[in-house]
Amino acid sequence: MDGEANAAANDRNSQLTKPPGALGRLEDLAIWYAGWRGQARPTLMAPQILIFAGNHGVTAQGVSAFPAEVTAQMVANFEHGGAAINQLAKTFGATMQVHALELDRPTQDFTQGPAMSEADVVDALRAGWEAVDPGADLVVTGEMGIGNTTSAAAIAAALYGGDAADWTGRGTGVDDAGLARKTAAVAAGLVRNAADMTSALEVLRCLGGREIAAMAGAIAAARFHRIPVILDGFICCAAAAVLAKSSNGALDHAVAGHQSAEGAHARLLEALDKQPILSMGLRLGEGSGAALAIGVMQAAVACLSGMATFAEAGVSDG
Amino acid sequence: MDGEANAAANDRNSQLTKPPGALGRLEDLAIWYAGWRGQARPTLMAPQILIFAGNHGVTAQGVSAFPAEVTAQMVANFEHGGAAINQLAKTFGATMQVHALELDRPTQDFTQGPAMSEADVVDALRAGWEAVDPGADLVVTGEMGIGNTTSAAAIAAALYGGDAADWTGRGTGVDDAGLARKTAAVAAGLVRNAADMTSALEVLRCLGGREIAAMAGAIAAARFHRIPVILDGFICCAAAAVLAKSSNGALDHAVAGHQSAEGAHARLLEALDKQPILSMGLRLGEGSGAALAIGVMQAAVACLSGMATFAEAGVSDG
Repeated sequence: MDGEANAAANDRNSQLTKPPGALGRLEDLAIWYAGWRGQARPTLMAPQILIFAGNHGVTAQGVSAFPAEVTAQMVANFEHGGAAINQLAKTFGATMQVHALELDRPTQDFTQGPAMSEADVVDALRAGWEAVDPGADLVVTGEMGIGNTTSAAAIAAALYGGDAADWTGRGTGVDDAGLARKTAAVAAGLVRNAADMTSALEVLRCLGGREIAAMAGAIAAARFHRIPVILDGFICCAAAAVLAKSSNGALDHAVAGHQSAEGAHARLLEALDKQPILSMGLRLGEGSGAALAIGVMQAAVACLSGMATFAEAGVSDG
Repeated sequence: MDGEANAAANDRNSQLTKPPGALGRLEDLAIWYAGWRGQARPTLMAPQILIFAGNHGVTAQGVSAFPAEVTAQMVANFEHGGAAINQLAKTFGATMQVHALELDRPTQDFTQGPAMSEADVVDALRAGWEAVDPGADLVVTGEMGIGNTTSAAAIAAALYGGDAADWTGRGTGVDDAGLARKTAAVAAGLVRNAADMTSALEVLRCLGGREIAAMAGAIAAARFHRIPVILDGFICCAAAAVLAKSSNGALDHAVAGHQSAEGAHARLLEALDKQPILSMGLRLGEGSGAALAIGVMQAAVACLSGMATFAEAGVSDG
């Protein structure tokens, strides 16, 4: 965060042709963005959407309404432009890349032991880090991975405590029996890996997945490049939580794009102290909720940088 | 509303590559939009933002933090591209026109009698009606008019009952004394015009303003042309309320773009039975909150019309 740019943006905002505070949260978002970009009058021209896909051994526990092969099928759908996130990227002028992470080598079933080896998790973190375009001026991380709300629930429970049931929801839409299996899998994973989970990164290794680790890597890389991040839903926030638990303020460069309909997301946003920009009942993943908030960020930045001041416009300022 | 297009859009939505309902309210918005446009797979290419400006005699009661000449100054600012709404229009690719309605002839002070004559209100309604481009595929109506939250509060109170204080807020930011003057003016207007206000249109004539009448005319014209409307904040919704009270279902082609920070807007949205798309603390007017929601509508329509179906993409549908 560039304090000088932040202060200059704040000063500029106070002179724009509107009553003080009348643009509400748009003003806060724009000033925050200006600080991270180090520009008092920033532009937002190059948003980048990164989708990471991974497969999960825990699907063996019957935790999803969809079969595991859907991960690869949806990757193909992303590549052919047919998914929701493709339409959202086009709508808001974002570039989009999809990274399929060893789909033919799912993680281990975490009810039986750690989901990933150290090498696995390091590879995935690096894939995420390297996927960020240093020339981007906004990053959205999204995911695809059948079974990954189960993984995210387990990570959240391990990082923040509470029962498995507090963090486990219906994901893509499991029925009551599926939800019971999912909750049991989360509980089993927490018990089975308890001894290994001595740090947030070990929680990621034991309960996470490659796409979740890659999102964490990308969010960290964005900070390195001073690129603001819009967080997506429950799974993205579980990845982000690993960073937040590893280092204070690790998510200061990130805002929450939306509040998902996945029940535990509200709880996780509260734990991260992030107030969602949108709340429209989405629960799709793919970065879709965060992508929807790109338009809001573009609008916020456009107002800060494009509006006339009272002096420029010859408007009486009350 | 075209029932066939609506049903076809609903059917298409159910086949898209996502879990059922996973796009939340975006799905409802897109299907609603499809119905009003009469297309199962609509496009949204030509949003139109209409800004109407008017001056208010009730400013003589000291109801605003800004002097009345700011209305004309802000119209010039709109014309030179310096206001918030200009940046939002550019961000979302909307055309924008500003209509200044007899700014040198303010309405009468409604604490002393009707704000407008019949000819005044008819002229303003017609100006709004004629401003709508029949080729637009989405309309946002916004306003500028020092004193017009006072007028909107009086209209809402006259239409829905309750005390003046229930509907009166700080507008552009009046202090406590200003708020007391404003509330007293609303109360006085309700008493002074009680005998004349025998219909919703008479409420508009007695307590409204030219820009408020013009918004009502534009919203009605949009319906005639089957163009969906995004409603803005408190003042726009007061204009819309006149239509809603005049005819059942008159706002079926309209959604609420946002919930304003102006306190009584939430109450008015409830009276209109409209759930806001966004809630970001804006209280600027100019159509700004509705314009911000254009991006959401574009995203919703893009997903409905652009996504692949399960069959097209070869994705297993669970």
